[in-house]
Amino acid sequence: MNDYISRLHAAIVNKRTAALVGIDPRWDQLPAPVIAAAQQRHPENGLLTRAAAYEDFSCRLIDIVAPLVPAIKPQAAFFEELGPAGTSALCRVIRRARDAGLLVICDAKRGDIGSTATAYAKAYLAGEDPDAAPFAADALTVNPYLGRDTLQPFVNTAQQRGGGIYVLVRTSNPGAGDFQDLTHQATPVFQHVAQAVEQLGQQTRSGGDYGIVGAVVGATYPRELADLRRQMPHVPFLVPGYGSQGGDAAAVAAAFDSKGLGALVNSSRGINFAFRQLPFAETHSEDQWEAAIETATLQMITDLAQGTPCGNLVSPSQQSTQD
Amino acid sequence: MNDYISRLHAAIVNKRTAALVGIDPRWDQLPAPVIAAAQQRHPENGLLTRAAAYEDFSCRLIDIVAPLVPAIKPQAAFFEELGPAGTSALCRVIRRARDAGLLVICDAKRGDIGSTATAYAKAYLAGEDPDAAPFAADALTVNPYLGRDTLQPFVNTAQQRGGGIYVLVRTSNPGAGDFQDLTHQATPVFQHVAQAVEQLGQQTRSGGDYGIVGAVVGATYPRELADLRRQMPHVPFLVPGYGSQGGDAAAVAAAFDSKGLGALVNSSRGINFAFRQLPFAETHSEDQWEAAIETATLQMITDLAQGTPCGNLVSPSQQSTQD
Repeated sequence: MNDYISRLHAAIVNKRTAALVGIDPRWDQLPAPVIAAAQQRHPENGLLTRAAAYEDFSCRLIDIVAPLVPAIKPQAAFFEELGPAGTSALCRVIRRARDAGLLVICDAKRGDIGSTATAYAKAYLAGEDPDAAPFAADALTVNPYLGRDTLQPFVNTAQQRGGGIYVLVRTSNPGAGDFQDLTHQATPVFQHVAQAVEQLGQQTRSGGDYGIVGAVVGATYPRELADLRRQMPHVPFLVPGYGSQGGDAAAVAAAFDSKGLGALVNSSRGINFAFRQLPFAETHSEDQWEAAIETATLQMITDLAQGTPCGNLVSPSQQSTQD
Repeated sequence: MNDYISRLHAAIVNKRTAALVGIDPRWDQLPAPVIAAAQQRHPENGLLTRAAAYEDFSCRLIDIVAPLVPAIKPQAAFFEELGPAGTSALCRVIRRARDAGLLVICDAKRGDIGSTATAYAKAYLAGEDPDAAPFAADALTVNPYLGRDTLQPFVNTAQQRGGGIYVLVRTSNPGAGDFQDLTHQATPVFQHVAQAVEQLGQQTRSGGDYGIVGAVVGATYPRELADLRRQMPHVPFLVPGYGSQGGDAAAVAAAFDSKGLGALVNSSRGINFAFRQLPFAETHSEDQWEAAIETATLQMITDLAQGTPCGNLVSPSQQSTQD
């Protein structure tokens, strides 16, 4: 079995970028042609209609970005909002991405105690074998508030299956600090969480620098990102907040090690609905939403290559040329 | 529209108990006859088989407890473990409970930022009208780690629809204290969360003592339960940890006000699988699992009536006799 971090880093090196594309279907943002096609198939205009549109949109997005990036991050909430029709669509979207050679990080922010946490882990963490879980993700985001013992079932399942987890350490929303910034012995809560995550990172290494337990660290606090990188040297980062939430390449650069590894930088809305936003809205009509996705993804890749250690990534073919 | 707390307290007074029955289907614990029936209908013995067994078990459990208790609490994780077949079963189980006159608290411990939190709220918080959400619960458990601004979308949807939320304040697992007990200015994190929840409780009152924002407070720390009751006078409690997790009536008594209101006490495994546990296993065979559920529920109701202010509850019919 290949562990999660080996698979992730192989994919990052292969694509020469750490760009992670979020899949955030939102009904009021979807391109009109996608909605029209779904309404033609499901004229009742209910949850099935929306689920068909979400699936169609997500699969086309996957097909566009699959040659460009190592991984995607579907947001479970938007699919769950549609009930079982939505969760069925989520299953198929994840499967489509894996079939296209992408790694999938399911952003479901689960957390519970004991055997309940194990049930969530078994639901979402397929790891290396997509048939091992119904929501067949490689990795899952997890909430730490309930304590270390509640992270362990996720770690165990991930280790058994070649999967990974990303623990919420520092989120990117305006109120993130309400509880995460409370200081205990001059150290904020999120750094205590970081300490626990670093221990899990160390414990789950198998040879390389990083373990299979990652951290979600928002790009909206660049100085903290640098501090957390130093505090968690064995922990792969997932950095939201790039693009729509205001972070740029400079803001996320500190998440990487000098080889350009150790981090994924996520953009969701900025890519999904690029055709609605400047500068892409000027050059792409609503009918050209797919071209806008491709352009926005390529621009993100260039931006990360120029402004972060991502630019140092060397692909296997280059490496063999150099050898 | 009737708000959540009015509907909850009416149900508690009507049933004269604050006993909350958790629905935790676990494949390795289910009664053999339930498994056999599901395997007959779905001989392929896959996720559909398990989902059929979970649904059958849950619906029979609901039919047994519906005349006895005000509410049930299905655990989303066990259903999600079965993929879309499981989430479809969860939808129908919730619907069955509502049709039987029960309130439903979906234990899904969701939490995310901004419009993503809104998507979760719209998925699970039907409030008064079961048609308003696919997972048609009256209330939902929510994780606070991401901050106050991430609770607000849940509060807003709950208010719009006559629903409620229960924020995780103090959980009942062994490692609950890892982050919840870190002290900031001599006050543990969970009390800072409690303070935020009390504010939301106050803000969402409409006439009565309690708002529609509740707190999950474990029964495994009785002294803290009393402190938190004082700290959150406007917050309805959901108290897990009774029964299988070691809490007894004395441990949960402090969760109630003097009228016997303001709290629900949950038992899951101790009721679901009573036929496997002492003392019920001595008097009930596996075939009598339904009778064991009824006996265990009645014993919990008696225990709460004798050992907590729940015994002070006066039903509307009694009240009119007294008048």
